[in-house]
Amino acid sequence: MALSPLAPAAFPDLPVIDGVTFAAAAAGVKYKNRVDVMLALLAPGAAVAGVFTRSSTRSAPVLDCQAKLGGDPSGPAAILVNSGNSNAFTGARGVESVKAVTHAVAAETGVPEARVFTASTGVIGEPLPHDRIVAKIGELAAAQASDGIADAARAIMTTDTFPKGAKAEVRIGGKTVRIAGIAKGSGMIAPDMATMLVYIFTDALIDQATLQALVSQANAKTFNCITVDSDTSTSDSLIMAATGASGVDVAGNADFADALHSVMLDLAHQVVRDGEGATKFVTLAVTGAKDDADANKVAMAIANSPLVKTAIAGEDANWGRIVMAVGKSGATADRDRLCIRFGDITVAENGWRAPSYSEAETSAYMKAQDLEIGVDLGIASGKSTVWTCDLTHGYISINADYRS
Amino acid sequence: MALSPLAPAAFPDLPVIDGVTFAAAAAGVKYKNRVDVMLALLAPGAAVAGVFTRSSTRSAPVLDCQAKLGGDPSGPAAILVNSGNSNAFTGARGVESVKAVTHAVAAETGVPEARVFTASTGVIGEPLPHDRIVAKIGELAAAQASDGIADAARAIMTTDTFPKGAKAEVRIGGKTVRIAGIAKGSGMIAPDMATMLVYIFTDALIDQATLQALVSQANAKTFNCITVDSDTSTSDSLIMAATGASGVDVAGNADFADALHSVMLDLAHQVVRDGEGATKFVTLAVTGAKDDADANKVAMAIANSPLVKTAIAGEDANWGRIVMAVGKSGATADRDRLCIRFGDITVAENGWRAPSYSEAETSAYMKAQDLEIGVDLGIASGKSTVWTCDLTHGYISINADYRS
Repeated sequence: MALSPLAPAAFPDLPVIDGVTFAAAAAGVKYKNRVDVMLALLAPGAAVAGVFTRSSTRSAPVLDCQAKLGGDPSGPAAILVNSGNSNAFTGARGVESVKAVTHAVAAETGVPEARVFTASTGVIGEPLPHDRIVAKIGELAAAQASDGIADAARAIMTTDTFPKGAKAEVRIGGKTVRIAGIAKGSGMIAPDMATMLVYIFTDALIDQATLQALVSQANAKTFNCITVDSDTSTSDSLIMAATGASGVDVAGNADFADALHSVMLDLAHQVVRDGEGATKFVTLAVTGAKDDADANKVAMAIANSPLVKTAIAGEDANWGRIVMAVGKSGATADRDRLCIRFGDITVAENGWRAPSYSEAETSAYMKAQDLEIGVDLGIASGKSTVWTCDLTHGYISINADYRS
Repeated sequence: MALSPLAPAAFPDLPVIDGVTFAAAAAGVKYKNRVDVMLALLAPGAAVAGVFTRSSTRSAPVLDCQAKLGGDPSGPAAILVNSGNSNAFTGARGVESVKAVTHAVAAETGVPEARVFTASTGVIGEPLPHDRIVAKIGELAAAQASDGIADAARAIMTTDTFPKGAKAEVRIGGKTVRIAGIAKGSGMIAPDMATMLVYIFTDALIDQATLQALVSQANAKTFNCITVDSDTSTSDSLIMAATGASGVDVAGNADFADALHSVMLDLAHQVVRDGEGATKFVTLAVTGAKDDADANKVAMAIANSPLVKTAIAGEDANWGRIVMAVGKSGATADRDRLCIRFGDITVAENGWRAPSYSEAETSAYMKAQDLEIGVDLGIASGKSTVWTCDLTHGYISINADYRS
């Protein structure tokens, strides 16, 4: 598949996180000779937090991870991920597959089974050929390397056109705390948590409950504020592990929280930039709503509107479709207070096309690759920003025959 | 634009409804030499009912109609509709346009202004050149004909590829009551009422309140159960007029209610069959839900899923995406009770691919033009049926440059 035109220039040079090692391998889950499985090992005592899809048809690995989070953190931990098959809607057999894989990881690495977190991503409803994964675990355990995170980022890709990574460093009390994260995601991206796979590692010292709170808080404004196609995956998982190897306690440290937020936002934006068929990256900033929840309703209604997204694909400044999406959102809105801007150009104000509106100027703006659309409802001070991409022929081509 | 492959063979031969006349004309609202305005005149005493979009950014004509419904029915009535411009998000000027048009109709025809109902459909946010419409009203009044409904159906089209009509006749007490309806709609079709323009006429005798109740009830299971693209129009209006000319009182008559329901369902299906870019007509039947509302949530989540719709376009029996859509719907669902069928083929049962599943058989079924997908949640007895179409390159092509 052709590289997304919105892809970053290169995969970032991620820092080594003391206490974490990685390896990736080609297990042949769906395709031969494609690196499709990765194993990360965490030193004893690492705090592990996570957020997951709220789908009522979520996958066996998601249910298994949710049951394990918050358990005894004293032992080592492991994260095993395969692409090519989501092990979702696979009934009792799916549960057995998770057991087989987690058991094999535990047997091979000495990690307690209750600390082996797995994820699977790919086609829904096909039995996971877990024997192929189990057969590779010895190799994965033997090949562990502290600088293997880039290979891990590639191993979890499905329809992604580029691997996704982000990093941050924070100086606290004269010491450096490092964060490195990877993500996969391209289609079936709508927020009801993370809608993708994300793994973030830090050498910060932090307890599980505090880490979980930080992750959940940042998630609400990052991964839960992106959408490619309004569809919510059955497999979405974000797991964050803090090894504590830096010895720096970050509980209550605002700089660390900001750094984590920036890593999560960076990864979330990369998922949108790799949205299936995407040619435009769009920031939707809604202000003046009754409250933040109402603002988010409006922003998501716009971001998920096929008519808005196709107009953006066509570089058409069709702001009437923004009005339509505001109207259908269910949020409190007063047509006669509504203002809409494309970049710095006010296109509509007070329920009517702006007197200064210039079709030529707005059309020229629409040719940019990164667009910002602002909607002010003029009601109160609720606000929300979400990110999305356009809807193109590329999306149809990718999804009309993905499974075949 | 090419005729939809799902179009009916011909426009039906609609019956004359005693007490209603029609005329259509080319006013040049957006394009020259395109019939884009229609005027229907109703004999004194006709009961007029309606349902409208619930969009918070609904158009000036919609607000005007909503204010007028239920008024004194003793005088004659008129319905004037233009295509090419929706007069939506046009501020105070939009209200003035409605006044100018309704005033002109009243002056030319003697219909009280409070009984002149208008609608406008087309681009949002552009001033309506109402002078062009006003200039044609004399011609429209002079050309009234009882058999002009087919021309009226053509006058209200926008991106529609065929005019839409439906009819029914009911024998009550040895007399015949007739119903004739027309509709337009192709994109920006999602139910929050009718999401299109619909005009239905009958010679039945019925009071306004009873007619309104009948229309609202049928609407809930017809126009509110279709979706093309999940986007809700700012202009949707359904108006039904009963002239009483047959002298047959239909209040409480189940046959009449059934006949009205069948006309509305027929028109609703035609809108889906003319869905922008549609190549498949899909019936989604959800059963076994907690209640009917939950069943509708599931049906709509499937019908609006871009991933489900693109799979159908690709004739791909990708039932895993149905599982995904059930999961994201927010309805009560138990993965391990879920059953899915494509036509008569059970593809999944009890949370797992059906043992009898045959990829070849299911793929062969997907090649049909009309598809039925059944989902049984296995929870209780709530049910809902909705109708939709696929999402194709045609939709992208039509909408990436509609306004230009």
